[in-house]
Amino acid sequence: MHNLLKLCSFYWLFVVCVLFCCELTCGYNTGGSIVEGKLNVHLVPHSHDDVGWLKTVDQYFIGSNNSIQVACVENVLDSVVVALLRDPNRKFIFAEMAFFRRWWLIQSEGIKDQVKKLVSAGQLEFVNGGWCMHDEAATHYIDMIDQTTLGHDLIKSNFNVTPRAGWQIDPFGHSAVQAYLLGAELGFDSLHFARIDYQDRAKRKGDKSLEVVWRGSKTFGSSSQIFTNVFPRHYSPPDGFNFEVTGDFEPVQDEPLLFNMNVEKRVNDFINASLTQDGRVNALYSTPSIYTDAKLASNISWPLKTHDYFPYANNGDSYWTGYFTSRPALKGYIRSLSGYYLASRQLEFLVGRRVNGPNTFSLGDALGIAQHHDAVTGTAKQHTTNDYQKRLAIGALEAEAVVNSALSCLTSSTSNCTIHTSTFSQCPLLNISFCPPAENIPSGKSLVIVAYNALGWNRTDVIRIPVKDANLVVQDNEGNTIEAQFIEFDNITSNLRSFYTEAYLGISPKDDPKYWLLFQASVPPLGWNTYFVTQTPGKGQYISVVDTPQNDTIEIGPGSLKMLFSLQSGQLKRIINSRTGIDLPIQQSYLWYGSGAGNQPSGAYIFHPSGSPPVIVSRSVPVKVIRGPLVEEVHQQFNPWISQVTRLYKDKEHAEFEFTIGPIPMDDGIAKEVVTRITADMATNKEFFTDSNGRDFLKRTRDYREDWPLEVTQPVAGNYYPLNLGMYTTDNKTELSVLVDRATGGASINDGQMEIMFHRRMLYDDHRGVGEALDEIVCNKTACQGLVIRGNYYMSIDHVGSGSRWRRTTGQEIYSPLLLAFTHENQDNYKASHSTRSTTMDPNYILPPNVALITLQELEDGSMLLRLAHLYEAGEDVDYSTLVKVELKKMFASRKIKSIKETSLSANQDKSAIKRMPWKVEGESGSEPPIVRGGPVEPSALVVELGPMEIRTFILQV
Amino acid sequence: MHNLLKLCSFYWLFVVCVLFCCELTCGYNTGGSIVEGKLNVHLVPHSHDDVGWLKTVDQYFIGSNNSIQVACVENVLDSVVVALLRDPNRKFIFAEMAFFRRWWLIQSEGIKDQVKKLVSAGQLEFVNGGWCMHDEAATHYIDMIDQTTLGHDLIKSNFNVTPRAGWQIDPFGHSAVQAYLLGAELGFDSLHFARIDYQDRAKRKGDKSLEVVWRGSKTFGSSSQIFTNVFPRHYSPPDGFNFEVTGDFEPVQDEPLLFNMNVEKRVNDFINASLTQDGRVNALYSTPSIYTDAKLASNISWPLKTHDYFPYANNGDSYWTGYFTSRPALKGYIRSLSGYYLASRQLEFLVGRRVNGPNTFSLGDALGIAQHHDAVTGTAKQHTTNDYQKRLAIGALEAEAVVNSALSCLTSSTSNCTIHTSTFSQCPLLNISFCPPAENIPSGKSLVIVAYNALGWNRTDVIRIPVKDANLVVQDNEGNTIEAQFIEFDNITSNLRSFYTEAYLGISPKDDPKYWLLFQASVPPLGWNTYFVTQTPGKGQYISVVDTPQNDTIEIGPGSLKMLFSLQSGQLKRIINSRTGIDLPIQQSYLWYGSGAGNQPSGAYIFHPSGSPPVIVSRSVPVKVIRGPLVEEVHQQFNPWISQVTRLYKDKEHAEFEFTIGPIPMDDGIAKEVVTRITADMATNKEFFTDSNGRDFLKRTRDYREDWPLEVTQPVAGNYYPLNLGMYTTDNKTELSVLVDRATGGASINDGQMEIMFHRRMLYDDHRGVGEALDEIVCNKTACQGLVIRGNYYMSIDHVGSGSRWRRTTGQEIYSPLLLAFTHENQDNYKASHSTRSTTMDPNYILPPNVALITLQELEDGSMLLRLAHLYEAGEDVDYSTLVKVELKKMFASRKIKSIKETSLSANQDKSAIKRMPWKVEGESGSEPPIVRGGPVEPSALVVELGPMEIRTFILQV
Repeated sequence: MHNLLKLCSFYWLFVVCVLFCCELTCGYNTGGSIVEGKLNVHLVPHSHDDVGWLKTVDQYFIGSNNSIQVACVENVLDSVVVALLRDPNRKFIFAEMAFFRRWWLIQSEGIKDQVKKLVSAGQLEFVNGGWCMHDEAATHYIDMIDQTTLGHDLIKSNFNVTPRAGWQIDPFGHSAVQAYLLGAELGFDSLHFARIDYQDRAKRKGDKSLEVVWRGSKTFGSSSQIFTNVFPRHYSPPDGFNFEVTGDFEPVQDEPLLFNMNVEKRVNDFINASLTQDGRVNALYSTPSIYTDAKLASNISWPLKTHDYFPYANNGDSYWTGYFTSRPALKGYIRSLSGYYLASRQLEFLVGRRVNGPNTFSLGDALGIAQHHDAVTGTAKQHTTNDYQKRLAIGALEAEAVVNSALSCLTSSTSNCTIHTSTFSQCPLLNISFCPPAENIPSGKSLVIVAYNALGWNRTDVIRIPVKDANLVVQDNEGNTIEAQFIEFDNITSNLRSFYTEAYLGISPKDDPKYWLLFQASVPPLGWNTYFVTQTPGKGQYISVVDTPQNDTIEIGPGSLKMLFSLQSGQLKRIINSRTGIDLPIQQSYLWYGSGAGNQPSGAYIFHPSGSPPVIVSRSVPVKVIRGPLVEEVHQQFNPWISQVTRLYKDKEHAEFEFTIGPIPMDDGIAKEVVTRITADMATNKEFFTDSNGRDFLKRTRDYREDWPLEVTQPVAGNYYPLNLGMYTTDNKTELSVLVDRATGGASINDGQMEIMFHRRMLYDDHRGVGEALDEIVCNKTACQGLVIRGNYYMSIDHVGSGSRWRRTTGQEIYSPLLLAFTHENQDNYKASHSTRSTTMDPNYILPPNVALITLQELEDGSMLLRLAHLYEAGEDVDYSTLVKVELKKMFASRKIKSIKETSLSANQDKSAIKRMPWKVEGESGSEPPIVRGGPVEPSALVVELGPMEIRTFILQV
Repeated sequence: MHNLLKLCSFYWLFVVCVLFCCELTCGYNTGGSIVEGKLNVHLVPHSHDDVGWLKTVDQYFIGSNNSIQVACVENVLDSVVVALLRDPNRKFIFAEMAFFRRWWLIQSEGIKDQVKKLVSAGQLEFVNGGWCMHDEAATHYIDMIDQTTLGHDLIKSNFNVTPRAGWQIDPFGHSAVQAYLLGAELGFDSLHFARIDYQDRAKRKGDKSLEVVWRGSKTFGSSSQIFTNVFPRHYSPPDGFNFEVTGDFEPVQDEPLLFNMNVEKRVNDFINASLTQDGRVNALYSTPSIYTDAKLASNISWPLKTHDYFPYANNGDSYWTGYFTSRPALKGYIRSLSGYYLASRQLEFLVGRRVNGPNTFSLGDALGIAQHHDAVTGTAKQHTTNDYQKRLAIGALEAEAVVNSALSCLTSSTSNCTIHTSTFSQCPLLNISFCPPAENIPSGKSLVIVAYNALGWNRTDVIRIPVKDANLVVQDNEGNTIEAQFIEFDNITSNLRSFYTEAYLGISPKDDPKYWLLFQASVPPLGWNTYFVTQTPGKGQYISVVDTPQNDTIEIGPGSLKMLFSLQSGQLKRIINSRTGIDLPIQQSYLWYGSGAGNQPSGAYIFHPSGSPPVIVSRSVPVKVIRGPLVEEVHQQFNPWISQVTRLYKDKEHAEFEFTIGPIPMDDGIAKEVVTRITADMATNKEFFTDSNGRDFLKRTRDYREDWPLEVTQPVAGNYYPLNLGMYTTDNKTELSVLVDRATGGASINDGQMEIMFHRRMLYDDHRGVGEALDEIVCNKTACQGLVIRGNYYMSIDHVGSGSRWRRTTGQEIYSPLLLAFTHENQDNYKASHSTRSTTMDPNYILPPNVALITLQELEDGSMLLRLAHLYEAGEDVDYSTLVKVELKKMFASRKIKSIKETSLSANQDKSAIKRMPWKVEGESGSEPPIVRGGPVEPSALVVELGPMEIRTFILQV
């Protein structure tokens, strides 16, 4: 057993653990391969390296800030390479390419050559291979794809290999999209993780169903299944076999030279830990791939798993559903940059990617890191969170330069793009009303607003900018004055603007804008339109009226959607769609849960409300109604720290709610988790639907799990699910849908209700390692206060079965808002030298309404990465859940496509190279509804077919 | 400064520190060599690896028991090799061969080849190169030589190099013998350490005399000087540059890829830490040798240092003088095994060393480890101390087998040695009266006692064995009945025997012996004699009389030394040598210091008595006088836990005191440090003399240091010095000498007084890292109690200037007592088949009285290692401090010496190969008394000359 001793010196690094997986194909054996007839114990040496958590990603890499945690990934990789070179039986798996890249870039050519050999020999295997081990609850599927693509590209281009195993050992619950999309569609053979609900685990351990074939997609069924291995305990090795350098373990001592030889005892420990069935154990260094191959070779049938593994609880008091909402500002920033990253890559592609100039890599890098399961989750320490935000801001700044430059190029009708210096600027703080170019328009010039539409469809949206006075006219690209609406600034926005510009930018703007200027913009697909705002003394347009209601019922809504409020209570009473005839009694309120302290306080991870019902913030709230031609608004201040503006637009059939929450007061000694609750007169029968990573919708049933008889210990926290796109509920007539602008958590605690958690502020750490209470504080020069969150949610009512069109289309619009760039120039001069309105597609072509362009990117080698996504599940919509075609020749009208190659989801291998392992499933009937997928793309026709939910990835030479 | 970053990944191991040494030969430079005109900063990467302390040596090696301390030497060496291979500029020094051997034996041939290359390229340099970094206070010079030889042999035979630097960075004070004998005489060019008295350091820092030329030997003067570098602070690097893996340091971050690049700041930190003189700093990876070469090349003069660096205090309350005595049982065991190791190697040599059979390596290994500065010092944790003792016991057991077998061989007149099975046994617990062969003599057989004399002189000693009855006669090897004396057992010895045989051996002997049987044995040099003890009913010999004194003054002493006791007080009153006519009023008593608690309690390291005077144990004590022909004894019980037997032998001119101390009671809540104090009517003028590692005597002056004006903060603890051989004091007429049987501490607190600390038991840890109170507990099957110490000291009075003969000769006899082996056989049968008395030298030859044979050993390659030591310093004795000759032909009368080669002290290089560096000394007059050393050995004559204090080492082929 000499090899065992070497576990000490080999795997002694602080974060290197050896995972035990037992596989029965059923003395001592130390060979490097599987032995028939024995219990083969696969020793999987790995290192769990958080891409930021208690320390920042760079601190983890270089091993600084060790007073917080002794950890240095550089050392892990340095010494693993040495150890692997010493013994060809040894293996090691590595997951996080954000770390690997840091290490790889500073290696000598000699080391690189050695590492390449180790990879090609299978000694060093990349698992997952994304930038990080992403979270699965608070992540958007586009971000998951992007961060995985980033890592897989690094692996492919340096090692010419493709990872085979999903390795999600730490995330706090597991999503359906992870299984089928970021698993099977990547070409992975298996998925491995540790954390599932404690009741689920107990049941699965009992009936040996920890290992399953998981079909995460209703639409794709067996065609996107994946073999899934849930560890019988956590991702650490059995007790006594955790050989961390700082650990207190008993090394295997097999040297007669030394005292206390314990090899027999330790081998027995090992065998016991290996759950011996007949005493004949074979131990081998292994990887998830080797393990999965062995499982397949066993040729037995596996239980079927559908749906997902949310929510996760590790005991009856500890539901990990707080992190769905934790750090809502970070989650909002990540989501907004996710859409911005998509748009900026389009623009970068359209003008050509610069290798050395500003490009979008930094933003992709930062977003890749931000998908880590302690980043977007909000479960890292504050200083690490600051680091994530700093990285995102740096990346965004560089992407802004790309966008400004690209828009200058695209719109220019005269100059040469490559030497163009952009005068455009953007307003990333527009949400708190800070937009210097709109606020200061030089006399004699117009404010030029270029609105870029990253969607493949035409769109019309109301643009809202802060201005100093109302003597402004808005003209479209042809010079026609268009309707504008001025709305007076409110104090809540003024205060936010004042505090946060100082806190974030260090500047205190002298004058507040007086108005929001609103106008409606129409922009072609993958194109832009231009609007001019010009000072015209005495010529101001419609200043909104603050309505003084006469009746107790106030009706608002300039379009077909109407909302009725009670003047007396301020409560929303009804919502009516006059076009469809739906009329739904409904109420909306804010509440907060007081967090239970005691042994399990709420914290960054855990939502553990005290047993008391949530506190309703206000049963009676004043309403201020603002009317105008484009939008009507109801302003409500629920209490000193919760306010809301409800907006109904002339041309939209949904309501937009803008909430401003915070600073959550703590002076009463109660940690608070703030939700909005929507109560409709609907018999929803415990059921509601939430999205999986913004993609599929999964049916949820209150107090129920599909996989086991749930013992309900937490009637609130145990019914929360992650939202990325939104949620909806139905009765036999109506469908009530809510969409969100960032990752958050939602539930339906009573029939007819949906609630969403928007903000949380804590007093205590929740004992899951982060060691800090989630208590976000923001400081300006003079004061610190609890974080204020401003965000939006959107509501629609539809006939039952008809809500998906709104959810899918509006969901894309929320994800990809119009991108606005500003400059100042004489309107005529500008028009003379610029193209003011254009699409980059064939002007007569738009993408089908059920297809979204989710990636358009120029790769480093100059080729084009294209991803098209069908937006509807099978059966979701009568018309749209069908095979659809995209004509690439029209989509890229100005380019000649020389070649096209379809690839796996992460673009690291030919689609045709993916081999599906033929797993057997217990009780499989063999019959399944037909699965619709698009056929091969004819290089001459260049038409891409997409079946429901299909995402197809192509690399094109153009 | 890219190299600096690599300090992180290279030197991140837990115990690897980078030591800064600055050397002015007076931008950035990262070359690997010294630059003229800059302050060259020598970065000396090293790992301070305690050969046992908080953990055992094996636990440190393999990295187990990490809850106590995270440390794994195997990892250090593994990763250092890798790091050195990566960059040829890198260097590393390693000191402890006890660890290196463990690692080396399990390396592959490939690794060994790489390491050999690193050594030969100077990247890996061995410093010290002994088995451990030995202590310098509690170690005997023979042990220091042996453990160094063991390590140097390993280095020489595997790498063919010889260490050049002494590296004693941690021991708690530094000895003269270390400087000249274990430094210069080893061929070292330099000596490096950290710990000197805080006042001394302050003074030396002030006048730039931290670096000195040290002449540790009065006898040898400049011929044994060594360049000595005392670090300006401890052996750790400057603050912020301690790159331990578990440390909280700020890594040098020079990767633009990562946040927080700090290379400029860290370089500035580095320069500041390097004590910049003109801002031009050159940093290089270095070793002590490179550093020393640079110092020599600077060609400047250095201050002269003589004497030693004892005692060590790191502040006014913290004198590290407790460890001189801590764990007196361990110290006694080590000393007794040291002599046994010397004798057993002689016997092993005489019959031929067995490679695979039992040999003396294990004992040498264990003794080598035991010299570590946390081993023999008594400053390791209890469990580690147990481990040391276990190793010693295992080594001793194997050496006993060697001795038994060798004596069988040597004494056999019939059989072939190589197949001889010995029937001899030995009695290692004779000191507590446990000796089964003596206690149970089968009827019809005699107890055969073979006494082996490892000295080069004839000797006569009283042998003392426990017997069951007095019907025994003792016959010499020729069958003559010789005088014997029986002394009844006392309760104190019975109790010790009963408790400790059960505690140590797990056995409870049924019957106690009734008597001690004493007889006088005479044994030739390097030879043996045989005595027969036979049951002869009714024929018992002299049973000692318990005297009932009549006068108040009791005189005892069967020979020329007499002692007078007061019957009333029990106190010793006078000591008289009737042969020399010396008559000295004297008193002897026991006292204990109550240890001061508070901020600095006494502990394993520190002696910090409370301010109160020591408690005198008894001013009046009963005396029991036992008289007989061979010995007269005074038994005194001073209190329930301190007793003493004073013995005067017929043929000895010294008094032997056997004390039994313990369990020290703690129920009064006072930690106690027990001393004996001898007060003579002598005007000693504050002066006394203590030995340096059992070799040279150094003059000590109370409340005085040679090197700086001492501020006395601890009038007791600050005047304690280590004793290994003993101490003496003089006035203008008389010399009063005391010799000890183990390492301990002694002082002269008032004129005419000498005191020696024998035992200590503590309540608190003393905050020097060990984390345990020194509170030694021994358990038998039913009870635990504080450790009882039994030991001896010896006293002589001589005319002033004449004491050295007794000290030197008796010192050797104490170190090398007669080695006794027992068997049972019919006396006539035994005599018929055995040689009963013989010397292995020429029967007409003995070594001169001023020469000791300190090593006679067969090396692994079959050659013979011989070390002869002159025992007298220059001027110490009128007759004996002279050049003396040893005739090897007569010494090895039965062997043919084929070749002889004189070597360095550790036998790792030809004596002639040692080059002395020509250091300049400040104010050097150039004149020095002539130094007497022996000349070259003529291969034909084979006569070895030895000057005073000279130790000559030879390798012979025989």
